[in-house]
Parts: sequence; C-alpha cells; structure tokens
Amino acid sequence: MATVTVYGPPISTAVSRVLTCLLEKDVPFQLAAVDMAKGQHRSPDFLKLQPFGKVPAFKDENTSLFESRAICRYICDKYADQGYKGLYGRGLLDRARIDQWLEAESQNFEPPSLVLVFQLAFAPRMGVKQDSKVIEVNERKLAKVLDVYEQRLGESRFLAGDEFTLADLSHLPNGHHLANRENLIKSRKNVGRWWEEISSRPSWKKVVEMQSAPVS
Amino acid sequence: MATVTVYGPPISTAVSRVLTCLLEKDVPFQLAAVDMAKGQHRSPDFLKLQPFGKVPAFKDENTSLFESRAICRYICDKYADQGYKGLYGRGLLDRARIDQWLEAESQNFEPPSLVLVFQLAFAPRMGVKQDSKVIEVNERKLAKVLDVYEQRLGESRFLAGDEFTLADLSHLPNGHHLANRENLIKSRKNVGRWWEEISSRPSWKKVVEMQSAPVS
Repeated sequence: MATVTVYGPPISTAVSRVLTCLLEKDVPFQLAAVDMAKGQHRSPDFLKLQPFGKVPAFKDENTSLFESRAICRYICDKYADQGYKGLYGRGLLDRARIDQWLEAESQNFEPPSLVLVFQLAFAPRMGVKQDSKVIEVNERKLAKVLDVYEQRLGESRFLAGDEFTLADLSHLPNGHHLANRENLIKSRKNVGRWWEEISSRPSWKKVVEMQSAPVS
Repeated sequence: MATVTVYGPPISTAVSRVLTCLLEKDVPFQLAAVDMAKGQHRSPDFLKLQPFGKVPAFKDENTSLFESRAICRYICDKYADQGYKGLYGRGLLDRARIDQWLEAESQNFEPPSLVLVFQLAFAPRMGVKQDSKVIEVNERKLAKVLDVYEQRLGESRFLAGDEFTLADLSHLPNGHHLANRENLIKSRKNVGRWWEEISSRPSWKKVVEMQSAPVS
C-alpha cells in the first residue's frame, strides 16, 4: 500500500524528478492532482504543504516536504536498503561527488534549460508566442555548461563516477525536452552517449508514459 | 595544521558560505588566492579544480570539490563529531528539513538576491552603473520569498526548526549585503529577529572581518 503521496502533475519537470527517484527506489506512491490551471497551487490547503506555491509537494507517514532535490535526497536516505542502492552513493566521498554534480545541475544546467523547456515545449501548447532571442541566449548559456559536461563525461561514465546516481537522474526532466535540439545534447559525443544511457532507464521510461497518459 | 584549502576570495558570497561552515565546524583551513581580475579562475590549473571557472574550489587530503553547498554538506558529514554538531541536523528528518530549506535558499532566495548583491554592493565598487529597473524587479521577487520566510519564522526559531543549521547559514553571504535595505529583511518582524540572531554568530563575524582585511 502506498504510504507516499506526490502532489502535482507528472508533466511538471520537478514532479517528474521525484517520481523517477521513487521508481528507482521501488517506493510505492500515489499521485494527488494539483490543477495549476485552476490555481490550486495557490490554495490555502496547498500552501500549507508548499508555502511557495510550487509543485511538487510530498508526504509520507512521517513528514511532508517540498523542493524536488531535497525530497529525492530524503527518499534515498529513508529507503536506503531497497531499489537501486547506488542512487545516492555508497559512502562519504561518493555522496560528496553526487552532491557536487547535483548542485552543478541545479545551479548551472537548470536555469537556462528551464527557460528553454518553457519556450520550446510549454509555450506552443499554451498558445504563448516563442521568443527567439530568449531561446538563442539560453541555448548559448546551456552549450557552455554542456561543454564542461562533455569533458567530464570523457573521464567517467556518469557525472559523479562509474555509477548512475541522483546527479544524472536530476537532468532527465529538462533534458527530455531538449534532447533532439541541435547543438545541445546529441551533438556532443560523450554527452550524447550519457544521455542515451540515462534516458533508457526503465524508471524514466515509466515517467514519460505517465506524462502522456490522459489526466484522470 | 590545516589540511583543507579553500580557493577564492572571502568577498565572494559562495566562498564566504564555505568559510562560515568551516568555522562552525572548527576545521582549520588555508585560503588560496584566485585573482579573478586577472582571470585566474579561467586558468587551466584552476579549471582542473572547478571546471565551470567559478569560486570556490575546495581541497582536503582526500578529495577536491566545487559548488559551495555541496562542499558545506561534505564538511558537515566529514567533521560530524567536532565543532557545532547541529549544523546538518541530528537524524533523517532533521536533515530532510535542512535540505528542504537549503534548496529553498538556493532556488528561491539566491536568484534575486544575487542580482541585488551585484547591483547594490559590487557594481558601485567596479564602476558599473546601477540599473534601477533590475533592482526594482528583483526586490519585488525577493520580497515575495521573504513573505514566506516571515510566516515560517513565526512558527519556528530557525528555518529548519529550533536550531541554527546549514539552511540558515547559507543565507548569510547574500543577506549581509541586503540587511539594511528597506522593505526586505529588517522590515519583517520574524525575518528581522532571525537575521539578528544568525548574523551575530562568531563564525559569520569572523568571515566579515576576513572580507574587509587587505588582500595579502
């Protein structure tokens, strides 16, 4: 029986980060709908769970939490002995290396890619006009970040070392919308190889399925 | 004898985050100068330590690391038994709550405050013209974040609970430059009370001293 609830739609990049983590750790969960078009993320009840009015929020029998990367760290620690055990490393140095690349994702990869995901994937669906200048500026920023990744992924199979970890996982939600864009992921040999491997994980494939399922 | 080296100037907000953490944990350290005006953060040697060309970089006898919040987490775990022991919590739920507010700082507080710190503190020193529109927009963004903090700090003494933690510490470097700005920190009762308490810690006072010391 699921004792874990994730609040928010799987199409949200931050929600899908948490779902992928739960699937990697074999943690049963249920989804609670938050209808953002109707402003439910601004309702008093939701703000008790997530005071900034963003998704996801998360609840298990012990606590409620927000911020996707904090939720992922908690899931890895709480369910350390089940599912994929290497997700948050196997010791102090592993963990430091994973935190380092998870921060690199959050500080360097996410800001330009979040703008691009909105412009390239969400704006057309929402009838919002794309801004080609904004796209160009942020593709240039992201390209510089990916140049660093290209070098790193020439030295190791995954960002934090030889195993798939939370640091890699955290790139999946934004990367998914950018993978086919020219001059970004697939045009770089090592980044392209890494992307193929991480986006083939059953956990992520399942989340992509959930994203395209009709809203119940 | 210091076995830990921090690369970068104490005036950098990210460097000062790490220094405060080291002081809280009673870890002796040495500073290695990185002359950013001369582009040393772009030199091949420095890029081996920090491939994105940012400060700080960090080295101890076991490893080298970058990203200030990842370095802080590592310091807390490696030196768990010394200095201030509550900095990264005393168990799974403490840590989850700290990670949550550390992510809130990194995702919500930092983006507008970093822009403001540049505009208000660094631009004048660098002879760069301040942009009043950029200041206004980012003060408005930060005010919304601080409204959430105001409510949270009405419920608990510190962000993650009743003890000072890494989540509070991480706000010191940017907050320092914004504390006297109207309508932000001190105009909010709970945020102002919290700011007085966290900015009075001897660790932070020492870092402020280091920031104003002449460069050797």
